[in-house]
Amino acid sequence: MLTITSRENKLIKHMAKLSQNRRYRYSSGEFVTEGDKLSWEAAQSLGKPLQLLVTQQALNKGGEALEFLMDKMQEQAVLIPEEISEKLTAAQTPQGVFCLWQMPENMPKMQDISKGKYLVLDGLQDPGNVGTIIRSCEAFGLDGVILSASCPDLYSPKVLRSTMGGIFRLPVYVCDNLVQAVLQLREKGFQVYATALSEDSRDITQIEWSDKAAVVIGNEGNGVSREILESCEQPSVIIKMNGNAESLNAGVASAIVAWEMVR
Amino acid sequence: MLTITSRENKLIKHMAKLSQNRRYRYSSGEFVTEGDKLSWEAAQSLGKPLQLLVTQQALNKGGEALEFLMDKMQEQAVLIPEEISEKLTAAQTPQGVFCLWQMPENMPKMQDISKGKYLVLDGLQDPGNVGTIIRSCEAFGLDGVILSASCPDLYSPKVLRSTMGGIFRLPVYVCDNLVQAVLQLREKGFQVYATALSEDSRDITQIEWSDKAAVVIGNEGNGVSREILESCEQPSVIIKMNGNAESLNAGVASAIVAWEMVR
Repeated sequence: MLTITSRENKLIKHMAKLSQNRRYRYSSGEFVTEGDKLSWEAAQSLGKPLQLLVTQQALNKGGEALEFLMDKMQEQAVLIPEEISEKLTAAQTPQGVFCLWQMPENMPKMQDISKGKYLVLDGLQDPGNVGTIIRSCEAFGLDGVILSASCPDLYSPKVLRSTMGGIFRLPVYVCDNLVQAVLQLREKGFQVYATALSEDSRDITQIEWSDKAAVVIGNEGNGVSREILESCEQPSVIIKMNGNAESLNAGVASAIVAWEMVR
Repeated sequence: MLTITSRENKLIKHMAKLSQNRRYRYSSGEFVTEGDKLSWEAAQSLGKPLQLLVTQQALNKGGEALEFLMDKMQEQAVLIPEEISEKLTAAQTPQGVFCLWQMPENMPKMQDISKGKYLVLDGLQDPGNVGTIIRSCEAFGLDGVILSASCPDLYSPKVLRSTMGGIFRLPVYVCDNLVQAVLQLREKGFQVYATALSEDSRDITQIEWSDKAAVVIGNEGNGVSREILESCEQPSVIIKMNGNAESLNAGVASAIVAWEMVR
């Protein structure tokens, strides 16, 4: 087993920068997963990691997920001290396990969608929300999640972590032009609803979902943008609330919508 | 309008400690809300705050919620510099508005529950989850949330913030002995289900909810504790998932359950 002890080591600096910098991730085409479980999930989809870094404390703790990863890497695994784990971590309590990955070459493409049920995220802000939504959609059995490019990056540590691995099992489509993506779906015969409150909004429980359906979730503060709203079916849909709350958490609203689409 | 400029001012130290220390909150019987919206929500339920601290930047930004609070306090409002706002804040970007409150004297009591629909939180860990669950339950029109004392404190800044004010509109019951609370509910004729996976778990969509119903949500990592599980109806209930996810985010699972109870 190899050992790295210097925080100035080239690989350590590379991996730290990958966790912090979206542009650097895409220019190098690599990303980092943290934690044994998330890295295990990544390996199920992506195979063998480029690198596995692990602390003695994590090795002592062991566990099936880490054993599986160590098995894959054998003597290529790299032992790192706690202080490097703390440099690399994006979490409050580092787990001492880091894998380096090549981004998948074939990202899912909108033109490959012919039917199915999708959530569309229009400019969400919070990485935890985006990750949680991907996790929920995968859990409920939706066919994918479509993101505007203005959402947090999929390969940021917070998004990855909050997907709990769902990102490695569910197709996620990132669109530079979300209006165009919505119009493309509608041309293919999709129902595409925006979630928005208007006088004639339809109760989400009253929709008959076809096998070509998508629902747009808007930004946490501002909701669905006007251009998207106008590109969707009219009227919009809402989650009916009995209390006095102004709104739901975006992760919760998305989960309710996804649940209703497959319930 | 009064002005405080010293970080060592007694009131500033008191309010900072209230935000950080659960025991101190309960020994002094006071708590702090941060932000104009949350403080406005608190005022709807609790009346006039003991103190209102505001930065010049927040005053310049203005808004209805802050105007309402300033109106209540008149010349008793206190102007603070940004550096004190940064000392007091529990958020990443301080909003420059802080209110000090007396805790309500009459906390809701389990013995007052005679019917209705409730979520029961058994040892949840994450303050954001607890707050989000209270927000969702209030939004969907449940009658209350019941917490084990091992959950994060209701008056911690993170819980308060993530309730988005729901905590000031929904009865929340905190129980030292959650097993006893569950048994009390059952004696009153409540259905009390635990959410747990077992061979014969019932699909949550198949339950006929009476007007006396409660569902227990377990800890993020370990689920519902054994003693609680044994005190509930048999079998337990589950949220059926089609994907390969091991679990849902606790806030999401709770929202789906609450939604199903009132749908």
